[in-house]
Amino acid sequence: MVDYNAPLRDMQFILDELAGLDEIAALPGCEEASPELVAAVLEEAGRFAAGVLAPINYPGDVEGCRLDGDGRVHVPAGWQQAYARFAEAGWIGLSLPQAWGGQGLPRILSTAVWEMWFSTNMAFTMLPQLNVSQAEALLIAASEAQKETWLRKVVSGEWGSTMNLTEPQAGSDLAATRARAEPQADGSYRLFGQKIFISYGEHELTANIVHLVLARLPDAPAGVKGLSLFIVPKYLLDADGEPAAKNDVRCISIEHKLGIHGSPTCTMSYGDGGGAVGYLLGAPNRGLETMFIMMNEARFGVGVQGVGLGERAYQFALAHARERVQGRDALSGASGRPILCHPDVKRMLLSMRARLMAMRALLYTAAGWFDRARHHPDPEVAGRCQRYVDLLMPVAKGWCTEVGNEICDDAIQVFGGMGFVEETGIAQFFRDARITTIYEGTTGIQGNDLVGRKILRENGETLRELLAELRATLEALRADGSLGEIADGFADNIDALEGAADWILANGRDQPADVLAGAVPFLMLLGTVCGGWQLARVALAAQRRLAGGARGRARRAIRSICTA
Amino acid sequence: MVDYNAPLRDMQFILDELAGLDEIAALPGCEEASPELVAAVLEEAGRFAAGVLAPINYPGDVEGCRLDGDGRVHVPAGWQQAYARFAEAGWIGLSLPQAWGGQGLPRILSTAVWEMWFSTNMAFTMLPQLNVSQAEALLIAASEAQKETWLRKVVSGEWGSTMNLTEPQAGSDLAATRARAEPQADGSYRLFGQKIFISYGEHELTANIVHLVLARLPDAPAGVKGLSLFIVPKYLLDADGEPAAKNDVRCISIEHKLGIHGSPTCTMSYGDGGGAVGYLLGAPNRGLETMFIMMNEARFGVGVQGVGLGERAYQFALAHARERVQGRDALSGASGRPILCHPDVKRMLLSMRARLMAMRALLYTAAGWFDRARHHPDPEVAGRCQRYVDLLMPVAKGWCTEVGNEICDDAIQVFGGMGFVEETGIAQFFRDARITTIYEGTTGIQGNDLVGRKILRENGETLRELLAELRATLEALRADGSLGEIADGFADNIDALEGAADWILANGRDQPADVLAGAVPFLMLLGTVCGGWQLARVALAAQRRLAGGARGRARRAIRSICTA
Repeated sequence: MVDYNAPLRDMQFILDELAGLDEIAALPGCEEASPELVAAVLEEAGRFAAGVLAPINYPGDVEGCRLDGDGRVHVPAGWQQAYARFAEAGWIGLSLPQAWGGQGLPRILSTAVWEMWFSTNMAFTMLPQLNVSQAEALLIAASEAQKETWLRKVVSGEWGSTMNLTEPQAGSDLAATRARAEPQADGSYRLFGQKIFISYGEHELTANIVHLVLARLPDAPAGVKGLSLFIVPKYLLDADGEPAAKNDVRCISIEHKLGIHGSPTCTMSYGDGGGAVGYLLGAPNRGLETMFIMMNEARFGVGVQGVGLGERAYQFALAHARERVQGRDALSGASGRPILCHPDVKRMLLSMRARLMAMRALLYTAAGWFDRARHHPDPEVAGRCQRYVDLLMPVAKGWCTEVGNEICDDAIQVFGGMGFVEETGIAQFFRDARITTIYEGTTGIQGNDLVGRKILRENGETLRELLAELRATLEALRADGSLGEIADGFADNIDALEGAADWILANGRDQPADVLAGAVPFLMLLGTVCGGWQLARVALAAQRRLAGGARGRARRAIRSICTA
Repeated sequence: MVDYNAPLRDMQFILDELAGLDEIAALPGCEEASPELVAAVLEEAGRFAAGVLAPINYPGDVEGCRLDGDGRVHVPAGWQQAYARFAEAGWIGLSLPQAWGGQGLPRILSTAVWEMWFSTNMAFTMLPQLNVSQAEALLIAASEAQKETWLRKVVSGEWGSTMNLTEPQAGSDLAATRARAEPQADGSYRLFGQKIFISYGEHELTANIVHLVLARLPDAPAGVKGLSLFIVPKYLLDADGEPAAKNDVRCISIEHKLGIHGSPTCTMSYGDGGGAVGYLLGAPNRGLETMFIMMNEARFGVGVQGVGLGERAYQFALAHARERVQGRDALSGASGRPILCHPDVKRMLLSMRARLMAMRALLYTAAGWFDRARHHPDPEVAGRCQRYVDLLMPVAKGWCTEVGNEICDDAIQVFGGMGFVEETGIAQFFRDARITTIYEGTTGIQGNDLVGRKILRENGETLRELLAELRATLEALRADGSLGEIADGFADNIDALEGAADWILANGRDQPADVLAGAVPFLMLLGTVCGGWQLARVALAAQRRLAGGARGRARRAIRSICTA
């Protein structure tokens, strides 16, 4: 297996030059994100990812998970120790509030850190990622007492978390949810129903598991407006808040999947023995609103998975291309040269690298908008940043996962026949990545969200605002004497994007089928042009550094983009 | 699992209207390919594929292959019986000469038939496919005595076949081959060396296995001009030509692969016990020429695998989209409708269908060229058809496998979360397809072959000839009053192709690195435009049928392309 090298230089370059780390560190509530702390956290995360998570990734894929006859789920060897170290180091709470045990660091930092976890062990990382998602839900909807009881343990990682939405007849269509909750005299509820595709629905890595379950109250209206959220623990708590009696919830099967073998995907049964005890989270029938906020978080995280898996696959492919000697150099005719010399292999690697840089820059920039939306004192800035986050969330999820899959596919191609052999390790990334364009909403659902909710509903206002930003970058490119070729291509791409957007806006009402059929291609176009926008910003930043005299650093930055 | 429905109507339409079945059936040596016989063979193949090969495809993937402690390779249950029926029915010899036990039917028919085998069980079909490839090699290079001894048993399927090219240090780079052959006093040879990635290198499905092994004679020149081919049987033959003593060849390991689990991929060791007895096939040091002719055959077959796997994945996806009820109809708002109603799902399915039709039409048309090249009495026609086959072979292999992979990927996407669960069966096609862009020469190697050998070497002459054919189809489109929109798009695409070809021809000598870096994108462009060309021909054929009064049939033909 190829060692993981955290791409710290690229990460730091984007944080400094594109995402505005300095500016964000100056915002109220983000003061701790000093340059020194950020660099130290990134370096430590890189070490942890390479030293703890990467070594158990492939063995975990081979071993997989197992449900035994007593309903216990066994995760791969090494998970327990890695999880203990992960929680102990405080990684779960990195971006969560200090008031609940987190470290309150900004999103731009945690995005880079989580990219490293996904790069090195996606199946494992889904476990702590669930804690973060659930913590966001509890922060939004839980009462203070609920936060004291549940949130603190979720942030520390002492307890695990799950999200229970999907049912056999209700995949992406939550309106079809049938699980039900019956109110009890003591204010609690009894839940009944089956949930499928529940990641880490059962395991023994934590002392308890906090299930968040979407279900219907007896008097709930039909459809999505009748869904409520419930906290359903694996073990009920005693008077001291410690796990005690087993609740009426169990894992009845686990899936045999294409990838993420180290992550148990459970079918969960609630209430077979009289009803699983649950507690209402938030207002009755308003579960979907909470889920949606949390889902947006999770979608962004899945986009980061696309980059993380792509990055690691690229590292594998690059290492192989440097080592593997095959054929003659097409130009010099020399033999004994590595396949990196073959123009087609170089093309694949450079294209992988460029797409990774574009995706990473877009995600970190979006993370910066997220931080500004949350912390910027000027409501105009905060509002604009929130609009950008909302508009581009389906792109961050859809485009970055589609492209992440393409990169993992290219990596196999660089390996040739060796790429088809599982022991090489690259096939795992290809298999693991395949879920990313599906879960938390397929690319088709992201496309519908983008075109329907994010563009047509507001008549394209935010998109036009964003297009103005792109044009501003175009002007800056033109103002720089040496970037004309980039400017010309970028100008064409902005025009193509604007033309497609105009067509969507003109036809959204009258030809909805055509517009929706074009939603995914439009999402991919928007992602590609925004990715190009970010690469243009990279070029400008490199020029700035050159002009500022930092020739060596800037040259390295350019080289880091232009050479494999 | 979804039943396999052989796409006989589409196949027959292409054979009749595009590939010129009538004309080919009139060629000397192809007279048996009457319309009745062709229809009967296609129908019977469809039944065999659906009834015999499809049912053991998924179980074979789950069971996989196993090497036991005695060096025996165990293939999945059902393989033995299916192989016996396959050989018994004479399917191996379908396109092989009657003189050696085959049926001598033209390539256009066998292409459609083999597509059905690949659709329903690629891992199994690799076994008889090896017999066909090896038979072609023996036809080219074997002496009459060798043909009597080996070819007849290979055509009947009584014995199995393998191709032994790759060594650990020599993947795509056969110049690095190290296996060696020592001449013996009796005219035979003793072979020594290790070969990897040998499909069906060992099994007990046949009474003997005929290995074709690439190796060096003691006095051989270095590089590819010092490679000879040897026949090395698993069992040496007794005086009656029957398998007797075990030869010094054995399987020492089998690969654990991403896909085609039912096909054992063996590491073969020759000569551990004093030398494996082999017989020189063809002239010394001319092994590569024979391999290349055979390789071209095999590459075409891999292109057919791309279509076959894509077709079956499409059938799975379409069936799922018709059954699965999720969400509301985006247009009517009605619930309880299948996901086929969602514009994005429909887009995916229509795009899959269109690409399959384009690929199938291109491959069958190319098969028709192949038949004309071999049988047409007019040397000008035969020569032109051979040039087209040579030019487009890397496209048939490279483009059809890349697009076949895309279609299998889209099929998973249509399934959503269910597509990631192995039991659904669709993931197998995605995994199996992944080898097709790698073996028999990666897409990069196809690109180099296209740009280097097929275009630059002859200064683009055949490509210009082909472009004239495309422009003739364009004229026909323009002459038809109702196909103007197709004509406009096609005209743009021809221009783009011609522009790219001009650039390659202008820069091939001076900027070889740039041109080679563009080889795969150019291959994909050529494939896409040729695929569009075939769809334009489909449209014209449909118009002809309409004009001829066959409204119902033509309408069905159009519908078969335009609707999912």
